[in-house]
Amino acid sequence: MENDLQLEKVKQVGGILKEVDADLWLVWIRETSQMADPVLDLIYGGEFVWQSALLFPMNGKPLAIVGNFDADATEATGLFSRVVPYTKSIKEVLIKELNQLGPSKIAINFSKNDVAADGLSHGMYLILQEYLADSDFKNRLVSSENIVSKLRGRKIPTEIERIKKAVQITESIFEEAQTFLKVGMTEIEIQSKFHEAMNRHGVGFAWDKDHNPAVDAGPYKQFGHSGPTSNMTKEGHLLHFDFGVRYQDYCSDIQRMFFFGKPEDVPEQVQHAFETVRDAIQAAADWIRPGALGYEVDAIAREFVKDRGYEEYQHALGHQVGRQAHDGGALLGPRWERYGATPMGVVEVGNVFTLELYVTTENYGQISLEEDILITRKGCELISRPQKELICI
Amino acid sequence: MENDLQLEKVKQVGGILKEVDADLWLVWIRETSQMADPVLDLIYGGEFVWQSALLFPMNGKPLAIVGNFDADATEATGLFSRVVPYTKSIKEVLIKELNQLGPSKIAINFSKNDVAADGLSHGMYLILQEYLADSDFKNRLVSSENIVSKLRGRKIPTEIERIKKAVQITESIFEEAQTFLKVGMTEIEIQSKFHEAMNRHGVGFAWDKDHNPAVDAGPYKQFGHSGPTSNMTKEGHLLHFDFGVRYQDYCSDIQRMFFFGKPEDVPEQVQHAFETVRDAIQAAADWIRPGALGYEVDAIAREFVKDRGYEEYQHALGHQVGRQAHDGGALLGPRWERYGATPMGVVEVGNVFTLELYVTTENYGQISLEEDILITRKGCELISRPQKELICI
Repeated sequence: MENDLQLEKVKQVGGILKEVDADLWLVWIRETSQMADPVLDLIYGGEFVWQSALLFPMNGKPLAIVGNFDADATEATGLFSRVVPYTKSIKEVLIKELNQLGPSKIAINFSKNDVAADGLSHGMYLILQEYLADSDFKNRLVSSENIVSKLRGRKIPTEIERIKKAVQITESIFEEAQTFLKVGMTEIEIQSKFHEAMNRHGVGFAWDKDHNPAVDAGPYKQFGHSGPTSNMTKEGHLLHFDFGVRYQDYCSDIQRMFFFGKPEDVPEQVQHAFETVRDAIQAAADWIRPGALGYEVDAIAREFVKDRGYEEYQHALGHQVGRQAHDGGALLGPRWERYGATPMGVVEVGNVFTLELYVTTENYGQISLEEDILITRKGCELISRPQKELICI
Repeated sequence: MENDLQLEKVKQVGGILKEVDADLWLVWIRETSQMADPVLDLIYGGEFVWQSALLFPMNGKPLAIVGNFDADATEATGLFSRVVPYTKSIKEVLIKELNQLGPSKIAINFSKNDVAADGLSHGMYLILQEYLADSDFKNRLVSSENIVSKLRGRKIPTEIERIKKAVQITESIFEEAQTFLKVGMTEIEIQSKFHEAMNRHGVGFAWDKDHNPAVDAGPYKQFGHSGPTSNMTKEGHLLHFDFGVRYQDYCSDIQRMFFFGKPEDVPEQVQHAFETVRDAIQAAADWIRPGALGYEVDAIAREFVKDRGYEEYQHALGHQVGRQAHDGGALLGPRWERYGATPMGVVEVGNVFTLELYVTTENYGQISLEEDILITRKGCELISRPQKELICI
């Protein structure tokens, strides 16, 4: 099994546990082919059939308690210093190991805020409560939100490399698109051309195929998550893409705007809107730095857009990107209820975020762009080449 | 979007709700690209970004409350009579709709027993509790285990067709294998030959690629979930496969045994073990019928094997097959703690199960077979062609 990346990520765990003062992180899972805790690929990269407990103590080595048929495969990963198999019930083994470790807090994967840290199902939570009913451990369960979001958010060099490669391939495909896009194509035709190109590049989809890329031709379509239609590209109209590929399990997520016509024919309202979006993103990129809070970054772009006389965008400025296009953790978003506490998250070195927003023009529909950035010690590095002007076809 | 199957499955919901006396089924989800409730593909087939509530009332039409950017795509499926979009928070809209429906019980997707019915994360459960804190609805939440397992387990004709096709392709590949298998090949080489064949047939993996097919050459390897090694096939040795493909989202799951040598060279202990496994499976197939309880079916085969002087197999006799190789719901298994209440589940018309078990020989390792069956009104139909004799190469 190829698991160098997982070995490196597991090495990160110990430091994070010390930092957030957690004695023990318990990843508590079963039948992961049905529904896998999103953290599993990051720290394991395989599947478990029966109830399994992966234990990461702050002081000590990782340990796995797994069903007997899973034991060989778990051993083979080399990720755990000890693999304890069981046949009929995990309960006794789990309690015995917990007693030996004696944690005062046990962090488990639930989170109201962060979907990437919310991999524990409610049923599995109830089972754990039941198993621990006779011990005091049942009162020591806390959310691992902090652990998971740091582990997931702080990309190691291998992860950054893969994301950069995904971004590069996405940009190459946008360049190829300039050779095949023309007036009179339907959104559906255009999407299938992108799929062909992805196939040639050997990359997968950063989100579901039907909506990737999102292709929006002309002024009448609200951007978002609806798939391509038989809308056609037209002289004097805009064409919008939201596109992300998956390269070796890591994603890109980029939006681009095309215009059918000569640069000099771009209507003033379109140019003004385009520049507003472009410059709002740049303003946020100039401002962002480690230690900033998510909603502060969002506010930079949001105020910028409002100051230019546009209505504010109805989404967050940016989300993290990694194994998923929406990778969880701190969000560069407004403090709206639907975002929970994620906009209060702290921006950290090694995070990869999108910066994306739209404004609405009077006659030409929405204009929306999206860039990908890597947080550095001093600020950020733009890992996509920001779109500077409308791409005229 | 191709969703005829989902439309048919959603039609099944109303009847099931009446049968189990549930006023309302609430599928409560978010950011499904990170971790999707396993039921979602069955009744929707797309993704949701923000917190979303899919409401299926016993008396009334399905309704979806979704984030504004998901609304178009949700409408487009035609699965819901009404799609209610929201921008900042789902809470008020959800409570308003619940007030209008006035359910005395609200079934949500958590289950200690059935992983396929346990799609609600613990964090999302806590959020729901919080949203409903000021209403009496918070006291009306019950498990939807019964609903989900019936919906998932009772295959409609389209689902059965796809599973049968997956089984057929699996069998074709086993037939092709007879032309390329020979003494001196490693497990790894053999697996890659199977992958080539799958590619030619255009099918996916019923479970993770590394362990599919499981290939076990010779007597020294414990069957189960460990991947292929550089073990070589040898004259006079057995070769075991556990193999499943995915055809149009539906799976097969079949085990076969090969022997390197002439039929007359099969050692008596091997032949005896093979016949025991084959006949134990047939005994269970002859006995199974709608209304039987899972553990009763398991006991038929388990006793059969023990009566022949072998140790009992350390797993369940059979699991359901569908969108997943392990599809959840009633299990044909012993009443061991790790299986929860699933062995008490009732066998129903339209269920697809595996029948699988192994015995251990003194000198030749394990012998294990697995067939797939469809439950009919009178008993079952074998949808795989049962292996009658060792396949001699």
